[in-house]
Amino acid sequence: MSNHRYPIAGMLAFTQDALVASGVPEADAVIAAKQMIEADITGFDAHGIFRLGMYCNTLKSGRTNPKPNIRTIQRSAATALVDGDDGIGHLVMTYAANLAMELARESGIGWVGARNSNHAGAAGIYAEMPTKQNMVGIYAAVSTANHMAVWGGAEALLGTNPIAIGIPAGKEAPVVLDIATSVASFGTIRQHVLSGERMPDGWIVNSKTGKPVNDPKQVGEGVLLPIGDYKGSGLALIIGLLAGVLNGAAFGRDVIDFTAAGSEKTNTGQFMVAIDVARFLPPEIFAAEMDRHLNDLRSSEKLPGVDAIRLPGQDRRKRRVERTKNGVALPAGIVKQMDELAARLQIKPLGSR
Amino acid sequence: MSNHRYPIAGMLAFTQDALVASGVPEADAVIAAKQMIEADITGFDAHGIFRLGMYCNTLKSGRTNPKPNIRTIQRSAATALVDGDDGIGHLVMTYAANLAMELARESGIGWVGARNSNHAGAAGIYAEMPTKQNMVGIYAAVSTANHMAVWGGAEALLGTNPIAIGIPAGKEAPVVLDIATSVASFGTIRQHVLSGERMPDGWIVNSKTGKPVNDPKQVGEGVLLPIGDYKGSGLALIIGLLAGVLNGAAFGRDVIDFTAAGSEKTNTGQFMVAIDVARFLPPEIFAAEMDRHLNDLRSSEKLPGVDAIRLPGQDRRKRRVERTKNGVALPAGIVKQMDELAARLQIKPLGSR
Repeated sequence: MSNHRYPIAGMLAFTQDALVASGVPEADAVIAAKQMIEADITGFDAHGIFRLGMYCNTLKSGRTNPKPNIRTIQRSAATALVDGDDGIGHLVMTYAANLAMELARESGIGWVGARNSNHAGAAGIYAEMPTKQNMVGIYAAVSTANHMAVWGGAEALLGTNPIAIGIPAGKEAPVVLDIATSVASFGTIRQHVLSGERMPDGWIVNSKTGKPVNDPKQVGEGVLLPIGDYKGSGLALIIGLLAGVLNGAAFGRDVIDFTAAGSEKTNTGQFMVAIDVARFLPPEIFAAEMDRHLNDLRSSEKLPGVDAIRLPGQDRRKRRVERTKNGVALPAGIVKQMDELAARLQIKPLGSR
Repeated sequence: MSNHRYPIAGMLAFTQDALVASGVPEADAVIAAKQMIEADITGFDAHGIFRLGMYCNTLKSGRTNPKPNIRTIQRSAATALVDGDDGIGHLVMTYAANLAMELARESGIGWVGARNSNHAGAAGIYAEMPTKQNMVGIYAAVSTANHMAVWGGAEALLGTNPIAIGIPAGKEAPVVLDIATSVASFGTIRQHVLSGERMPDGWIVNSKTGKPVNDPKQVGEGVLLPIGDYKGSGLALIIGLLAGVLNGAAFGRDVIDFTAAGSEKTNTGQFMVAIDVARFLPPEIFAAEMDRHLNDLRSSEKLPGVDAIRLPGQDRRKRRVERTKNGVALPAGIVKQMDELAARLQIKPLGSR
């Protein structure tokens, strides 16, 4: 990690230029760049500018359609099915989130499924959007690669399918929970692969022996373990069925690894839900109750060795304030990647913005 | 466990009579008994007739209202808020589930929250209901007692808040996942308290020392641990906020233990969602795709030592067939409790039905 901090405005402009140079129309590049850098701003570093090279690669290979016609192909008072036309996942899910909020405004709730989408970055970004409109947001996705097995199984037929939920509060930060259904995220495991650091028991199990995989060199010989054994496996399955199968999107044996070579379409599935708080409680009463309860939890007695109780969403808000002001420190490896990307796409390097 | 098996019809009639003798009108007793015994039929033994004594106690104490006026106090095209009037939770959530399906038929999805409800038994019962109408069902509840702390905390301010999801299939059994957000359910822990059997690390942590509690005599000195550390804690929090706070129901410090002495109302909160499959895919295509994927998962390679891959909902269907035919074997302790209940309420004993 170098000491240099990259200003948000520069990261946004760089990302936007990279997307435009990859064939994305200006207006779409603005939206996608905003959602990509939102991950860096809120501290989800493994889902932000870190992935830009990968997104540009899939635009180049044709796996991702740079000029998609994202459209609603079925709609009822409170549900919709969106066809992403193989566009950038961030564009598809921004469209879906906005539509879910529109439906919720009309009907109290909106549930929008998507097919023919792609990797959409950090789940929490979409779950947080409705909280600004006094709505609850729920986002879930079929992972763009299978790293888990069904409970008892040895074959990677399930993703670490993530779910994120955002709930507005009053003075407190909105609650934003953003979790994968595996014990360790694949991003964390990739960091161990890079550093060579041993992994604890309980992250990966060897497919042939059923024994823990601790050596990061042997990651490929095992499957990731779900949280809470059969419970997390069940959650990953449910998310896969609702975000994938229900939308006519890929699941199980049909999943195409987004990052693999080739231009085959992924048909990624996701869903987005918005719920209008006012249909249940007056928003000001809900906000006050949220603040009261969150404060009760945070100020409750701590286990020995715990310095502070952190509620999901709290650090997110802190990081947004801090990084918006001071910019984002990026590891040297990422900076190098961005320099190479700039050279390849013939755009102004990140460092000079 | 005695070898005697109690026929379902007798268990239903006994439960119904016990409720009527506790002041519940006949028509309501029929519905509540059906939902209570549904737990025994599907294998959720800790949530069936096992709890009948407790339900009758709260009807007697006045905590549960035997003649509630369950009504919809807010309604939009796809959402509703139900006031359970402190009635039996099974009645409130059956009402809520039916309303959710009605909304989903109209608007594609229905999300129904409930306040002033009570313990409603096994979560999976309600999640499974919509699957018979080609709908997805989701049920979640604030537990009627707090046994978990927020992540890092030592005070029991969170329930092991359960969630259940039902998804229809074709020839395969519907997927029904029914899980608490704690590693071990409180029912399992209660069994260890009764038997004296030591508990493994990871179930309960001592509130003062942060060390594992293994001796079931010391259950009262600790808090239950969530699945996946902060992830399960976050899920319990989210469920509590959506099923409790959003509905104006109890959460955190406001939760009243349903089984504790006294007649104070619990104001239990739950929610029920139904989603109409046909708004996304033609039901016959969805059913075929579900069957294909479930079959893929079940026939996938197994880890060593695993005899068969079990999908959530599969055993439920098997048990329904087997128990409907052969009845339910009940532990001697339960039979004794039922005999005492019969004597107290002056109804025909379970054994003579």
